[in-house]
Amino acid sequence: MNFVIIGGDAAGMSAASRAKRNKPELNVTVLEKTMDVSYSACGMPYNIADPARDMEDLVVRGAEVFRKKQGIDLLTGRTARRVDPKNKTVSGTCVDGSGFEYPYDKLLIATGARAMIPNLPGFERPGVMVLKNLEEGRRIKAHIRTHEVKKAVIIGMGYIGLEMCEAFRELGIDVDMVKSRETFLPWMDQKLADAVESELKANQVGLYPGRRIHSIEAEGKKKLQVVCEDLVLSADMVLVAAGVLPNSEIAAAAGLKLGAGNAVSVDETLLSSDPDIYAAGDCADAVHVVSEKKVWIPLALRANRAGWAVADNVCGKAAALKGIAGTAVFKTFNMEVARTGLDVHEALDAGFDAAETVIESRSRAHAHPGSSAILVQLIGDKASGRLLGARMVGKEGVAHRINALAVALHVKMTVEEFSQSDLAYAPPFSPVWDPMLTAANQLLKQL
Amino acid sequence: MNFVIIGGDAAGMSAASRAKRNKPELNVTVLEKTMDVSYSACGMPYNIADPARDMEDLVVRGAEVFRKKQGIDLLTGRTARRVDPKNKTVSGTCVDGSGFEYPYDKLLIATGARAMIPNLPGFERPGVMVLKNLEEGRRIKAHIRTHEVKKAVIIGMGYIGLEMCEAFRELGIDVDMVKSRETFLPWMDQKLADAVESELKANQVGLYPGRRIHSIEAEGKKKLQVVCEDLVLSADMVLVAAGVLPNSEIAAAAGLKLGAGNAVSVDETLLSSDPDIYAAGDCADAVHVVSEKKVWIPLALRANRAGWAVADNVCGKAAALKGIAGTAVFKTFNMEVARTGLDVHEALDAGFDAAETVIESRSRAHAHPGSSAILVQLIGDKASGRLLGARMVGKEGVAHRINALAVALHVKMTVEEFSQSDLAYAPPFSPVWDPMLTAANQLLKQL
Repeated sequence: MNFVIIGGDAAGMSAASRAKRNKPELNVTVLEKTMDVSYSACGMPYNIADPARDMEDLVVRGAEVFRKKQGIDLLTGRTARRVDPKNKTVSGTCVDGSGFEYPYDKLLIATGARAMIPNLPGFERPGVMVLKNLEEGRRIKAHIRTHEVKKAVIIGMGYIGLEMCEAFRELGIDVDMVKSRETFLPWMDQKLADAVESELKANQVGLYPGRRIHSIEAEGKKKLQVVCEDLVLSADMVLVAAGVLPNSEIAAAAGLKLGAGNAVSVDETLLSSDPDIYAAGDCADAVHVVSEKKVWIPLALRANRAGWAVADNVCGKAAALKGIAGTAVFKTFNMEVARTGLDVHEALDAGFDAAETVIESRSRAHAHPGSSAILVQLIGDKASGRLLGARMVGKEGVAHRINALAVALHVKMTVEEFSQSDLAYAPPFSPVWDPMLTAANQLLKQL
Repeated sequence: MNFVIIGGDAAGMSAASRAKRNKPELNVTVLEKTMDVSYSACGMPYNIADPARDMEDLVVRGAEVFRKKQGIDLLTGRTARRVDPKNKTVSGTCVDGSGFEYPYDKLLIATGARAMIPNLPGFERPGVMVLKNLEEGRRIKAHIRTHEVKKAVIIGMGYIGLEMCEAFRELGIDVDMVKSRETFLPWMDQKLADAVESELKANQVGLYPGRRIHSIEAEGKKKLQVVCEDLVLSADMVLVAAGVLPNSEIAAAAGLKLGAGNAVSVDETLLSSDPDIYAAGDCADAVHVVSEKKVWIPLALRANRAGWAVADNVCGKAAALKGIAGTAVFKTFNMEVARTGLDVHEALDAGFDAAETVIESRSRAHAHPGSSAILVQLIGDKASGRLLGARMVGKEGVAHRINALAVALHVKMTVEEFSQSDLAYAPPFSPVWDPMLTAANQLLKQL
């Protein structure tokens, strides 16, 4: 049986490896358009921040290991261009321009996502970069090495932008961040967003939300200008981190149903609308465990997990994924920012009678040295008492705390039940009442 | 209505404050035998470690605040000696030797726990100390300040001993730890215990488990000797941290039923076997959410929570606590050690068909600088697939991770369900597969 996979990153290679482990006799072919497979994309900002590190150290497992040790037919430099569901083939072009066509019995589309580039003048100029795949990471690192980059402008204020902001500052590069939308971090309460904003400002980052961007222009021979409605920002380089788009065009062209965010619509088994084609990773949608609606939230863990589930299903070991909570964390300078579940707007949109609370607590016990503020926002449903989502910001202990709330969302816990959880306490790590419990107790008063 | 509370620490003062908030017209009387109320007992090792800190900074809220701002009749220096359930009175002695007697309508016994002192010769010698209440903390700090303490011996290897071990070393004091029981940390897998042991040894701590202790003798005029079966340890002071006992004698003498660990047996509403007497905090037992059996695991969060629940029940707002997971964390030097739920022996004793796994993962993503080992032990039930308990050791990210597993225990999640949790990932905080998920995936193979 031929199991063909388009895309050799998290979902694709997870599926390929597991399929081979499940069934060594399976023919597993991976078609990857770049020369890179199985690397830690999320690690790129940290790698870029350190000139002494080799970009290649982000490669988790080299192509040769997959080929020789695992017997996967891993083909890099092959861009899949067309899926023919009727004849069950994938065709496309190799790096040298020649064509290829492979027959499949089961196909996995794991084409990932790409950085969104606004359709505005000047975004094609040299020095305007995006960061999604390893090649783009190498390009940014090379640009910084070979150019005198004193100032970068980041378009967008999402987590990649905020991580890259820290990376630039570590390299001594000045940073301005700009975006069209008015609100800095719209998916969390203003108080939490303000704490992150303060951290950025303390690190001399210029923040310009609510500035409509017109174009990127040349400034002299070497520099660039990001031209906004009422603002011009000079830069030695521009990073466009304005969001991502699913690479679902090949699926759409093959007649597959698209779902949330124009990602490939899949069921719990990761099957698309074609009975022999799966989709997984950043190009596929998922069910949200809170709203039970389809969402597109491309994240690494889901990609890996979905890759495994596809492999199991292809090999006859039925696997179904219940859904995602949209749990995510990022660090910017010394601030940890975490989220899981719905924000207030999403909760209202999903039909919940949403209530929310925001509390400020401390990262360590009363009088314990080194303590810092932790802000917790919790969202609950007045009708059912259910916990719907959480946001958290602080200098320590935020990244892992959010997981307790994520687990609670998976099991549809009420705020009252969560408030009764027996959480860990020791003075270096928490007040007796963990900030999450303080928030839950507070939210209860509104439910 | 008279609501009388014996004991003015976590459970007692939580109950007193909340009762007054619930019902300002209630007469709330607290009888506290020491002069201290509402302090962070768990913070004492960290305070002792820092000669510049005042012991009093551990007091969360002073007695005067409770008295004047909250209107609580807070009586310190009153040792309750007898409860008469028939006539509904509490009697005892004041610090000046005079007697007192108070009538109650509802009584809360919140007498806490005390350090266990082995009934062996020499434990009464000057320089042999325990650490449970603030007065004992002051005594230790004064002893270190006024004596030339170069070497301490700690009897016991529980979390207070291990926290104090770090405190002594920070003060430049050499430490030996000794106990009769053979196994260093019997409630976790050997690999995890070994990691903690390595951390202690790297900090020049002498560890002597499995040494039966005979006596404490004088060595010359100033020093002490801890005399064991085949070992003599010299010391300038000895800390006895060999476990704690519930202060349940007054309850037993009043005819109340004792439960697990000889603590006062209480139901979900914290009511004892007498319909007008509650017990809460370290002197009361609780239901374990995993085994559903009564246990005695004295911890600060439960004490606070139980105090609140008693106040609500006394004030006619029905409150029931489902139970505890025994979630706890401590730090010793740079090692975080966390637990929740049952260990393998407890699981077998509780009738589960226990299986376990131990995995080693990393605290940060592939190739991310500053990463360190995280060891996770998970215990599951082969019959039901349920998660039963977890143990974790590592230099970062352990203290808060354990809470995700604690929540899972509260809702009786299966290992399979937990393995599907959407946990947070970013390179500074975790591999893509959080160590907890790696452990769950591994344990699943045995279930």
